[in-house]
Amino acid sequence: MPNDDWLNEVKWSADGLVPAIAQEAESGTVLMMAWMNREALAETVHTGRAVYWSRSRGRLWRKGEQSGNEQLVRDVRLDCDGDTVVLMVEQKGGIACHTGRHRCFFRQLRDGRWEVTEPVLRSEGDMYGDT
Amino acid sequence: MPNDDWLNEVKWSADGLVPAIAQEAESGTVLMMAWMNREALAETVHTGRAVYWSRSRGRLWRKGEQSGNEQLVRDVRLDCDGDTVVLMVEQKGGIACHTGRHRCFFRQLRDGRWEVTEPVLRSEGDMYGDT
Repeated sequence: MPNDDWLNEVKWSADGLVPAIAQEAESGTVLMMAWMNREALAETVHTGRAVYWSRSRGRLWRKGEQSGNEQLVRDVRLDCDGDTVVLMVEQKGGIACHTGRHRCFFRQLRDGRWEVTEPVLRSEGDMYGDT
Repeated sequence: MPNDDWLNEVKWSADGLVPAIAQEAESGTVLMMAWMNREALAETVHTGRAVYWSRSRGRLWRKGEQSGNEQLVRDVRLDCDGDTVVLMVEQKGGIACHTGRHRCFFRQLRDGRWEVTEPVLRSEGDMYGDT
């Protein structure tokens, strides 16, 4: 029986979630932030592939399940308060964002405006189907 | 009068907050994650110093106000959903964590345990006073 003490050390929110930051191991780029519940974090560690909790869909979200853009997890870190996780990942396909960009943080504040600074590498239609 | 359109593009939570990830500009290290309300983000951008919203204290938290470990903000990024921010910062004093460590993510999961992987560089007593 697996020892779940490490999961008990995580301080889950009232909703049972923690923010999980995915950082690209090779480049150090912060790719995205999503949420995990206990089951998602346990499966992530067990399988070595990032699994989040989709708040909008109300279900586990195995990253890349549709797009193929999986995240192989090299390292899991917890912060001082125990309420935020960092994953060091290898981003398959080089695309973390559902918009087809390398990372979700593709907007930069410049002179009081959010400017898009990263190109679309693959269309959403190509990743998810034009349905 | 400043144009606040960029603040309106941020998708604040029901509590009026967004997670803000502070990444060290020079090293790429993810230092910490904290929360910002509208006022905190506006002041951060206006002053170039990271200001968060302390949920535990219920007030603005000007990072380094006690410890001196300010964060000079070089870049502010917003994600695809508009509900998470990344700050690229210069960490004064080299210490982001209230425990006196370089970063808050000083615990790494190894063989089912969270192991501390980073040393305390400065004592909490020294940073905050032994009161």
